[in-house]
Amino acid sequence: MKIGVVGLGYWGPNLVRNFLGTEGVNAVVCCDIQKKKLDRIKQKFPMVEITSNLDSLLKRDDIDAVAVVTPVSTHFPVGMKVLKAGKHLLLEKPMTSSVGEAEQLLEEASRRNLVLMVDRTFIYTGAVQKIREIIEKGDLGEVLYFDSVRVNLGLFQHDTNVLWDLAPHDLSIMSYLIDVEPVSVSAIGINHFNGVEDMAYLAVRFPRNIIAHFHVNWLSPVKIRRILIGGTKHMVVYDDMEPSEKVKVYDKGINLTSEESVYKTLVQYRMGDMYAPQIEQSEALGLLTAEFISCVKSQKPPTSDGVLGLGVVRILEAAERSLRAGGGAVNLEKAFSLV
Amino acid sequence: MKIGVVGLGYWGPNLVRNFLGTEGVNAVVCCDIQKKKLDRIKQKFPMVEITSNLDSLLKRDDIDAVAVVTPVSTHFPVGMKVLKAGKHLLLEKPMTSSVGEAEQLLEEASRRNLVLMVDRTFIYTGAVQKIREIIEKGDLGEVLYFDSVRVNLGLFQHDTNVLWDLAPHDLSIMSYLIDVEPVSVSAIGINHFNGVEDMAYLAVRFPRNIIAHFHVNWLSPVKIRRILIGGTKHMVVYDDMEPSEKVKVYDKGINLTSEESVYKTLVQYRMGDMYAPQIEQSEALGLLTAEFISCVKSQKPPTSDGVLGLGVVRILEAAERSLRAGGGAVNLEKAFSLV
Amino acid sequence: MKIGVVGLGYWGPNLVRNFLGTEGVNAVVCCDIQKKKLDRIKQKFPMVEITSNLDSLLKRDDIDAVAVVTPVSTHFPVGMKVLKAGKHLLLEKPMTSSVGEAEQLLEEASRRNLVLMVDRTFIYTGAVQKIREIIEKGDLGEVLYFDSVRVNLGLFQHDTNVLWDLAPHDLSIMSYLIDVEPVSVSAIGINHFNGVEDMAYLAVRFPRNIIAHFHVNWLSPVKIRRILIGGTKHMVVYDDMEPSEKVKVYDKGINLTSEESVYKTLVQYRMGDMYAPQIEQSEALGLLTAEFISCVKSQKPPTSDGVLGLGVVRILEAAERSLRAGGGAVNLEKAFSLV
Amino acid sequence: MKIGVVGLGYWGPNLVRNFLGTEGVNAVVCCDIQKKKLDRIKQKFPMVEITSNLDSLLKRDDIDAVAVVTPVSTHFPVGMKVLKAGKHLLLEKPMTSSVGEAEQLLEEASRRNLVLMVDRTFIYTGAVQKIREIIEKGDLGEVLYFDSVRVNLGLFQHDTNVLWDLAPHDLSIMSYLIDVEPVSVSAIGINHFNGVEDMAYLAVRFPRNIIAHFHVNWLSPVKIRRILIGGTKHMVVYDDMEPSEKVKVYDKGINLTSEESVYKTLVQYRMGDMYAPQIEQSEALGLLTAEFISCVKSQKPPTSDGVLGLGVVRILEAAERSLRAGGGAVNLEKAFSLV
Repeated sequence: MKIGVVGLGYWGPNLVRNFLGTEGVNAVVCCDIQKKKLDRIKQKFPMVEITSNLDSLLKRDDIDAVAVVTPVSTHFPVGMKVLKAGKHLLLEKPMTSSVGEAEQLLEEASRRNLVLMVDRTFIYTGAVQKIREIIEKGDLGEVLYFDSVRVNLGLFQHDTNVLWDLAPHDLSIMSYLIDVEPVSVSAIGINHFNGVEDMAYLAVRFPRNIIAHFHVNWLSPVKIRRILIGGTKHMVVYDDMEPSEKVKVYDKGINLTSEESVYKTLVQYRMGDMYAPQIEQSEALGLLTAEFISCVKSQKPPTSDGVLGLGVVRILEAAERSLRAGGGAVNLEKAFSLV
Repeated sequence: MKIGVVGLGYWGPNLVRNFLGTEGVNAVVCCDIQKKKLDRIKQKFPMVEITSNLDSLLKRDDIDAVAVVTPVSTHFPVGMKVLKAGKHLLLEKPMTSSVGEAEQLLEEASRRNLVLMVDRTFIYTGAVQKIREIIEKGDLGEVLYFDSVRVNLGLFQHDTNVLWDLAPHDLSIMSYLIDVEPVSVSAIGINHFNGVEDMAYLAVRFPRNIIAHFHVNWLSPVKIRRILIGGTKHMVVYDDMEPSEKVKVYDKGINLTSEESVYKTLVQYRMGDMYAPQIEQSEALGLLTAEFISCVKSQKPPTSDGVLGLGVVRILEAAERSLRAGGGAVNLEKAFSLV
Repeated sequence: MKIGVVGLGYWGPNLVRNFLGTEGVNAVVCCDIQKKKLDRIKQKFPMVEITSNLDSLLKRDDIDAVAVVTPVSTHFPVGMKVLKAGKHLLLEKPMTSSVGEAEQLLEEASRRNLVLMVDRTFIYTGAVQKIREIIEKGDLGEVLYFDSVRVNLGLFQHDTNVLWDLAPHDLSIMSYLIDVEPVSVSAIGINHFNGVEDMAYLAVRFPRNIIAHFHVNWLSPVKIRRILIGGTKHMVVYDDMEPSEKVKVYDKGINLTSEESVYKTLVQYRMGDMYAPQIEQSEALGLLTAEFISCVKSQKPPTSDGVLGLGVVRILEAAERSLRAGGGAVNLEKAFSLV
Repeated sequence: MKIGVVGLGYWGPNLVRNFLGTEGVNAVVCCDIQKKKLDRIKQKFPMVEITSNLDSLLKRDDIDAVAVVTPVSTHFPVGMKVLKAGKHLLLEKPMTSSVGEAEQLLEEASRRNLVLMVDRTFIYTGAVQKIREIIEKGDLGEVLYFDSVRVNLGLFQHDTNVLWDLAPHDLSIMSYLIDVEPVSVSAIGINHFNGVEDMAYLAVRFPRNIIAHFHVNWLSPVKIRRILIGGTKHMVVYDDMEPSEKVKVYDKGINLTSEESVYKTLVQYRMGDMYAPQIEQSEALGLLTAEFISCVKSQKPPTSDGVLGLGVVRILEAAERSLRAGGGAVNLEKAFSLV
């Protein structure tokens, strides 16, 4: 199988490297409008083909699937071209810059029986897989909250703000771990340099008082990647900057006790041990490319991933609306269904 | 000078201990309605006097000043009694449970020429003093944001939610460090256990796109006490859980560059060294009691501290309104002025 | 019961404070030759009695026991005086500056049926108690090694080097955890400033290839307090600088496999989870003073503690000999027995 | 220029990857006796040539230089073959398994005017370069000690013990940073599993009471890579496990004061700020291969690196002798000189 990779900026070369190492991939054809980037990828991986012509790449019969790693605003037009050329599609996150675009891509992929996958790398990490396993076993009890901080001195993007740039990672993790449909979104964003928002706070409300909150920031002197998940039985801290022990499970929880009097304690804390489960170390991106190839081979179209990608875009779009309106809550419409 | 301490719950004994060690204090008289608490303080500090009768304590001529460390809802009635008895007043944070109450206390203290100080312990720590020094020297440049996380597995309070319990610390630090009047407040709070809010997110907006954000939480498995302060020249991380190196100053900043083309970078990051200044280790509470005694002696009434305490209450009251209304922004009225 | 505390330098006041809070202690009499130190303790704890006359203190019938917290070189003469006056004795670590002195004190205490306890505070910490519990349950398997680092920018002592100053803590912990008699000792010490050794490395060998190693240092810019304990089944990291999670137990071990060929792997690593047990937070020194009072009351003389204190002095004395001789191994003589 | 790489075990493929990315390298020819390893490298880097015949590789005129990444015991015979074939030589650390072998290789390279470089990767890291810069500026003052801990759950080696496996890294760093000839070596090693030593402590003494100490360990549950360097003016902590801030410089030092009396303090500590300089992030191995190619091109034979590699072997050989003799100090003979 031959794979096309369109867009060779920061992330594209990582996909090229991983596709080259994925079983079942015979060749990778790289495409970019900038000759400099093509030369660089050729120097790094002399066995790849390069081209600056997307249309001719899409006309080739020997190419089965295409990964699109271009700026967000081009995801829709380029992705649609890829699907209309009958190729399976792997889209970089966020899926598109609007819900409408995401829905059109999903419909097109569905009609043509093509795989549409969104690059949600973090889902494939050993850490997130382990947390999901813990939640599914019921070890956390009822999930109470999800609190994420993803801040660093980051590259300012030009066609997108910090919310669309950084939050998709954590929104993907959230929707992978919390199996409930969110109901509303509110966001505050600040633009210090007359351009796009460089820091933002995002809250997502669920039924039963579950809340998820996100701090994304391009202006932090330190790199923090930490998610707290509170449950009634146990609580989890996922710190991606820890060299080992990325996931810690705390045997701490809260028990409701019968309210004896207004002045008596209504809740009890349970303090206990902490344990840090061993985490699988495989490169997440390699697992993702492998799953993409496997889906393409088995003609299992379209995977639910596209729908989850749409869910992330739906939240981002609502967040953008809240942000523009001063931070009030924006209700989420019903989720898109392919049925 | 003799000092009364009213309320001997969690924090009161710390004030007793520090007053006992403050120069100029001859004796401490402890007052609580629970006999058990009086016995315990007597056992710990055999040289203190104890009484369960507040009125008789306030009638004594040999007592110059009284510290009130009772639950928040009683700060106003007890504090007013103290002032009306002609005693100087040290109030535990938060000052009162409403702006109206705080204003009445300030007016009473002003009319009677009495000192009214609010226990804002953190202001007196070596760390916050050092950060203020750095900001005043202009080392941070323009302050861009203030982001605070104060979370732990905390004792649920009964007469107050997590916002009124934990946020006063960070709001005090914020108003001590950012010398600009805030303009609006928004807050989200979650109540998981049918009582008061146990976690909350609070945003305070300032002119010139400065923002302060606070995460306070009684349900976190880990204790985090971290403040990020972003400036145009340098950035600060204040991590109160670090045994040494609580304050780190990063030589990282952002330079605006002229926009040459749509695709050129509009901002430039400056990466550089980090340094961790040596921090004074004295106990903050001891410095606070010393300043209170010094104010009382010099008859320097009323200190600005009461006004700053009012500022904190004003933000908390607005936050509470935003929280009840679903998180939209609430404008802050003009600050109280004694003139 | 009344307790005398002799020596009010750095550590003495901590003992005073803890004795004041120990059930069964009615009064504490403080003794020091420096009037300044007596004044300071009186100011801090107004209920203590003070005296600069040791002999008169020892003559008093109302004093049952005396804690000696003077410089090491005086432990023997002062301690012997205390015992000869018929008082129970609590000695600061290290017990004495020679094995001969320690043995004489033990004999005197034994003859007079008096309690002789050595202040081995760390043994009473929740962390060391928990590790002992883990080892006793057999969770570690065979202990392979004990590696301790205790370094900081420390106060230079005048009558003792860094080995006698810092190593007693870790030697106490070691002998509390490893229930095997050590066989030899070697030590390297460096004296950078024409006085006493300011850094040292100490190795203690046991039968069955068990080794304990200690790095003690007054010249380290950072404070490190970390002990690694390797076992065949699990391994422990005890980091006393961690605010919570001081003890971590790693499910990592080594299995011997049958040697199939010279080139096959002879050992197998077992990787797995880590857990951090909850640690009791009580102040260790308070538990020690409580145990001392309880021993005195029950007339349980002399506790094994004195013998363990002697074991530490025996290792230090051998280490000193090795250090002077260039670092070669020095065999330990048979341990002292009271039988 | 074409480069041969002999030995494709754990480290060899890293050298292949870096040589492929080094300017001036046209092709890499890989050689191993195991066909499986040749297949694996071909799959990963399809542009390399592979061969299992070392002799034919050495006969080729188009190959200018050869990197030898085989087990230590074969460094001498394979390295000598390479030199006798007239090829420049890059040897994996440690250089050889004896001083005699290292000297013969150096003589051969010198006679034939060939480059002989030893792979001392750590020297090329931004962290070590920065520390050297700090020392050369005189910022540390007089170096007092060098203390290194390199422990982890490591792969047991079969033809070498933990000392020869891990200590060369830190001995290279030490000799790169401390510009004084060491005088003696002592070592303790423990063999828990009837094979080779799996943990060891090594001390290297210098004139003027400078000491270097090394703890290397294959049985540690946690990975520690930390070097403390004490100086009279400043002190350095180099923690290679820190994601950023690997090097911290402490403004703490010790001042000698005139000895006024036996009881006065003889040394004074100076406490102050800490700073963490920005560290260059380039891959060290890439810098090393680039320097090797540059030496070969400029015919600058033989670089001092071989002599430094010999210095490391000299210490290891003396350490081995001390270890076998029970840990006493072994004097180092005069260093080899090419003059």
